[in-house]
Amino acid sequence: MLDQSRSAISTLLDERREGHSLPAGLYTREDVYEADLDVFFRKHWIFIGPECDVPEPGDASVIDVAGSSLIMLRDDDGEVRVFHNVCRHRGARILDEGTSVVSKLVCPYHQWTYELTGELAYAPHMGRDFDKTCNSLKPVNFRNIGGLIHVCLSDDPPADIDALEAVGRDRLLPYDLKNTRVAFTQDVIEHGNWKLTIENNRECYHCAANHPELCVSYIDLDFGFDPESLSPEDRERAARHEALYARQIVAWEAEGYPSAAIEHLSKTESNFRTQRLIISGAGESQTPDARAAVAKLTGIGRKDLGDTHLWGHNSWHHFMGDHIIVAAVIPLGPDKTLLRMKWLVNKDAVEGMDYDLHNLTSVWVATNEEDAALVGRSHAGVSDPAYVPGMYSPFTEKQLDWFAGWYVDRMRAHGY
Amino acid sequence: MLDQSRSAISTLLDERREGHSLPAGLYTREDVYEADLDVFFRKHWIFIGPECDVPEPGDASVIDVAGSSLIMLRDDDGEVRVFHNVCRHRGARILDEGTSVVSKLVCPYHQWTYELTGELAYAPHMGRDFDKTCNSLKPVNFRNIGGLIHVCLSDDPPADIDALEAVGRDRLLPYDLKNTRVAFTQDVIEHGNWKLTIENNRECYHCAANHPELCVSYIDLDFGFDPESLSPEDRERAARHEALYARQIVAWEAEGYPSAAIEHLSKTESNFRTQRLIISGAGESQTPDARAAVAKLTGIGRKDLGDTHLWGHNSWHHFMGDHIIVAAVIPLGPDKTLLRMKWLVNKDAVEGMDYDLHNLTSVWVATNEEDAALVGRSHAGVSDPAYVPGMYSPFTEKQLDWFAGWYVDRMRAHGY
Amino acid sequence: MLDQSRSAISTLLDERREGHSLPAGLYTREDVYEADLDVFFRKHWIFIGPECDVPEPGDASVIDVAGSSLIMLRDDDGEVRVFHNVCRHRGARILDEGTSVVSKLVCPYHQWTYELTGELAYAPHMGRDFDKTCNSLKPVNFRNIGGLIHVCLSDDPPADIDALEAVGRDRLLPYDLKNTRVAFTQDVIEHGNWKLTIENNRECYHCAANHPELCVSYIDLDFGFDPESLSPEDRERAARHEALYARQIVAWEAEGYPSAAIEHLSKTESNFRTQRLIISGAGESQTPDARAAVAKLTGIGRKDLGDTHLWGHNSWHHFMGDHIIVAAVIPLGPDKTLLRMKWLVNKDAVEGMDYDLHNLTSVWVATNEEDAALVGRSHAGVSDPAYVPGMYSPFTEKQLDWFAGWYVDRMRAHGY
Repeated sequence: MLDQSRSAISTLLDERREGHSLPAGLYTREDVYEADLDVFFRKHWIFIGPECDVPEPGDASVIDVAGSSLIMLRDDDGEVRVFHNVCRHRGARILDEGTSVVSKLVCPYHQWTYELTGELAYAPHMGRDFDKTCNSLKPVNFRNIGGLIHVCLSDDPPADIDALEAVGRDRLLPYDLKNTRVAFTQDVIEHGNWKLTIENNRECYHCAANHPELCVSYIDLDFGFDPESLSPEDRERAARHEALYARQIVAWEAEGYPSAAIEHLSKTESNFRTQRLIISGAGESQTPDARAAVAKLTGIGRKDLGDTHLWGHNSWHHFMGDHIIVAAVIPLGPDKTLLRMKWLVNKDAVEGMDYDLHNLTSVWVATNEEDAALVGRSHAGVSDPAYVPGMYSPFTEKQLDWFAGWYVDRMRAHGY
Repeated sequence: MLDQSRSAISTLLDERREGHSLPAGLYTREDVYEADLDVFFRKHWIFIGPECDVPEPGDASVIDVAGSSLIMLRDDDGEVRVFHNVCRHRGARILDEGTSVVSKLVCPYHQWTYELTGELAYAPHMGRDFDKTCNSLKPVNFRNIGGLIHVCLSDDPPADIDALEAVGRDRLLPYDLKNTRVAFTQDVIEHGNWKLTIENNRECYHCAANHPELCVSYIDLDFGFDPESLSPEDRERAARHEALYARQIVAWEAEGYPSAAIEHLSKTESNFRTQRLIISGAGESQTPDARAAVAKLTGIGRKDLGDTHLWGHNSWHHFMGDHIIVAAVIPLGPDKTLLRMKWLVNKDAVEGMDYDLHNLTSVWVATNEEDAALVGRSHAGVSDPAYVPGMYSPFTEKQLDWFAGWYVDRMRAHGY
Repeated sequence: MLDQSRSAISTLLDERREGHSLPAGLYTREDVYEADLDVFFRKHWIFIGPECDVPEPGDASVIDVAGSSLIMLRDDDGEVRVFHNVCRHRGARILDEGTSVVSKLVCPYHQWTYELTGELAYAPHMGRDFDKTCNSLKPVNFRNIGGLIHVCLSDDPPADIDALEAVGRDRLLPYDLKNTRVAFTQDVIEHGNWKLTIENNRECYHCAANHPELCVSYIDLDFGFDPESLSPEDRERAARHEALYARQIVAWEAEGYPSAAIEHLSKTESNFRTQRLIISGAGESQTPDARAAVAKLTGIGRKDLGDTHLWGHNSWHHFMGDHIIVAAVIPLGPDKTLLRMKWLVNKDAVEGMDYDLHNLTSVWVATNEEDAALVGRSHAGVSDPAYVPGMYSPFTEKQLDWFAGWYVDRMRAHGY
């Protein structure tokens, strides 16, 4: 007989062993998925998109996440605002998914009309006793961190978002995201749990065999290795790279560009990591030839400052001199995750003149498709009754061990 | 932590506030959907189709509703009968969905053969001890109300169906549904809860902005308005219309055509409303130019008797001089509803000669598609965690408030 | 109010009445489906494919069943092996579904590399303390029975598989499955519960009206009949056939070919039946004209030995002189079942020269499609609230009664 008394989520959390991947149920169960949405997508800060999604007053963008539909817009004063996309009358969606340009927010059902500040301006046939001031659109907590819009759907958002804001000030401002525009968006549906998408992103153990395009510019050694697994030649190459990086980081920092790793990954509420790394080969950008793909550079206009990555628990980004990629990870089900990546370029860069779109996007477009296949086979495997949590490499998968530990801690902190 | 002890349905019913739309869970939850099927689609009378779906002896029509498949047929004596479409042997479906012409009902699996009266006539290889008389097709309770077939899947059907039968006698007989035929059928899948489909149908607050085709012949003022929301011109137009309607209703009644509203909507088991209303413009029919679309009229042959509507809790119908529309609302899931509309014309009317099909159907075909989009965005919104029940307009949405109240009462009456 | 305390599975088992089809919930409920997978697809021996799926060393075939993905392969010593298709690192699928040729099993994610014996040969970056010997691929219990691979996913497999093994020795060896190859594979998705697929296969009551192609070579009388249901002519035909069969079985047995029915169907753990039957008409094979479709015969090379069938609880097979069909039944959901049939021919037979593929396969291809439609309408019917278990024919459906009884017994034996 099957054990009908399925274990509580807390029992699954107990079963997690340090240095090992998570117990199957934490990746696959519907109730864990619901708990994940509640804890990690409603009660923590999540990335929903760059502010350049809404460059001008009246621009609006709708994002669906964790069952909520959000309107991000720029109001008449040029300020970003975020609202729930739910009419206060009978709840109809006000805007469709995607982007639009609006002067007011008009619900198509009965023409209830809201200002871009969220105030209800017009609601016919409601009578004298109806109080419009109680029926504004519900606002959403958000922070604009160096041009990256983060929201928290809870009324009690984690305070340590301030640490990420400091990173935005120090490391992202030179890239001036406000003055970029979205050159391309790729939506990939991954057939796996969102945590497998994040695990896949936090190691480069799989890069050499799976990402020929990315490996032109990306150096997997930066994410750890077992010296004994390397050939004598590779060991020597690794030593040379470490020495080079040590010198380069000193040079960058001396110029005023903070570069060292910041790891806000354990014993924290918000989870992020940033570091400036060397780009391989031509050294300029994550493109097929590692050279800048865009002639008009972003922000301060330097293409010799390597690649600054920023990882969150539902995002990763790479800041380079010629373009920036930003990726949001949005769970759609226990075994289904949306990866939405955008390529940002200087707002004045013109396609066909300043850049070739394929050259700009092909490396990460291919990498995302390769990763989606890996996440799919990973999810299929952890769903198999024969799966048992395996050992993480102590050299190349420490980031995963920390993520799994942080995951368990945050679940505990929210009562599981 | 999520509240693991999900509230009982009765708690949701408690939360409903008069004058407001229903709590989210009553629209979205799977357990409420199952309860709805049980209470409203098995234990109340529901409309399944017009009797002219089976005009001749041997005509059969299969309708799937609430998990049951029903065979409506006309037997050799010309009588309508309704059976469960389940072979008494191993349960196979006897007929496929749609219509067919049969002399007997033969199960394709093992050729068990039933008379059109439901009696088992033939079952080979069953041996001498097998009692065919215990294995007739199961009959279904039904009433033919003015040509509209209503069934109740329960053994204890509500008795107040007699009130609807009286309406059938008084108001529908002049249209002589028996001598109509189905000129067109439109199936629309609405991505919303069936109660949102019904709510949408019971107000015309949304008509002006959403139904340009219907508004040629339909007068939204008939369903309430807030005088203060109208411009001085519209207020005057409303006053003129009220006066006109007051005179018209007297004239119709004097001719023997009952017209005043009958509202069997609160404190009743069966839920219905009927009223004869003025058609706008040319005044004849719900067509693009408000003129009769069919040269050969139905029944008594008058096109100056306006539009008699009849609403049930899973149906709405409009009776006009040249044609009749009948609509059945059939839930397919908590967030999925089939709307099946049929256009009935005089059985002797010939397409291309007596009417143009597009001219006959285009107004409601467009209206149904527009409504499906509204119901979809409504369901998406009530599924959002940010939804809270909103206020119904005291002028234009009273019908919805009564429907919500009736819904709660009927759930209570069945033990929820 | 719906009865919220849904009955336990054991109550459903109690409700089963001898001589009648199963209570609805045993065919339709999700929890019963999960229990079925556990009891009948994990704790009993199931057929997964013929050994000729992997004819040469390095050939591998992946089969998904009951949530498990299995690799069947032939190792370098020519031995068949079966493993779980789950990498011991982070669980990724190693091989994709279908067949492949491999020298090692390399996980595409991080290149963990296993020998064809399952041993982990290579796992980079894991450090000195990592013990490869604890990380072999997990093997699966299997038996090669006359060329038919059976697995049991439990550590405590039923011992009476020995009885089936004896059948393999006596009856299947003359067909020499090892020296056949797969000429064709048909996958059919049936929209019904796996037990309805098996019930459908265990009676020929439905054959005459549904399987015109099969009835050329197949004799439905062999599976029982009620003499009183036959016409005088058919009764005489039946008597002649019984006499013929009585003589034929003596002749076959005298030649050393066991033929009589073996029924291992009740009070057993493993469920199977075998019998050698006469082929109708030309008498050679289940083809459109009942003649051998393949010039190069299988095994001992005789086409006058009729048709030996072998039924298991998730399979059926027919062994004939010119070809063999093997069918696996794999549940995909409570109402969804995969039927995978393969046609095996002498490995040296060449398509277009020794046989015409359409002539070889058309009878069972059509029969499977016809059966899929019947299973679909059967499942639809048992899902209807109006379904009540019906009587099995005491003449033509005894096999179904025994199967239902065995099903209930095995559920009981596993604690339900």
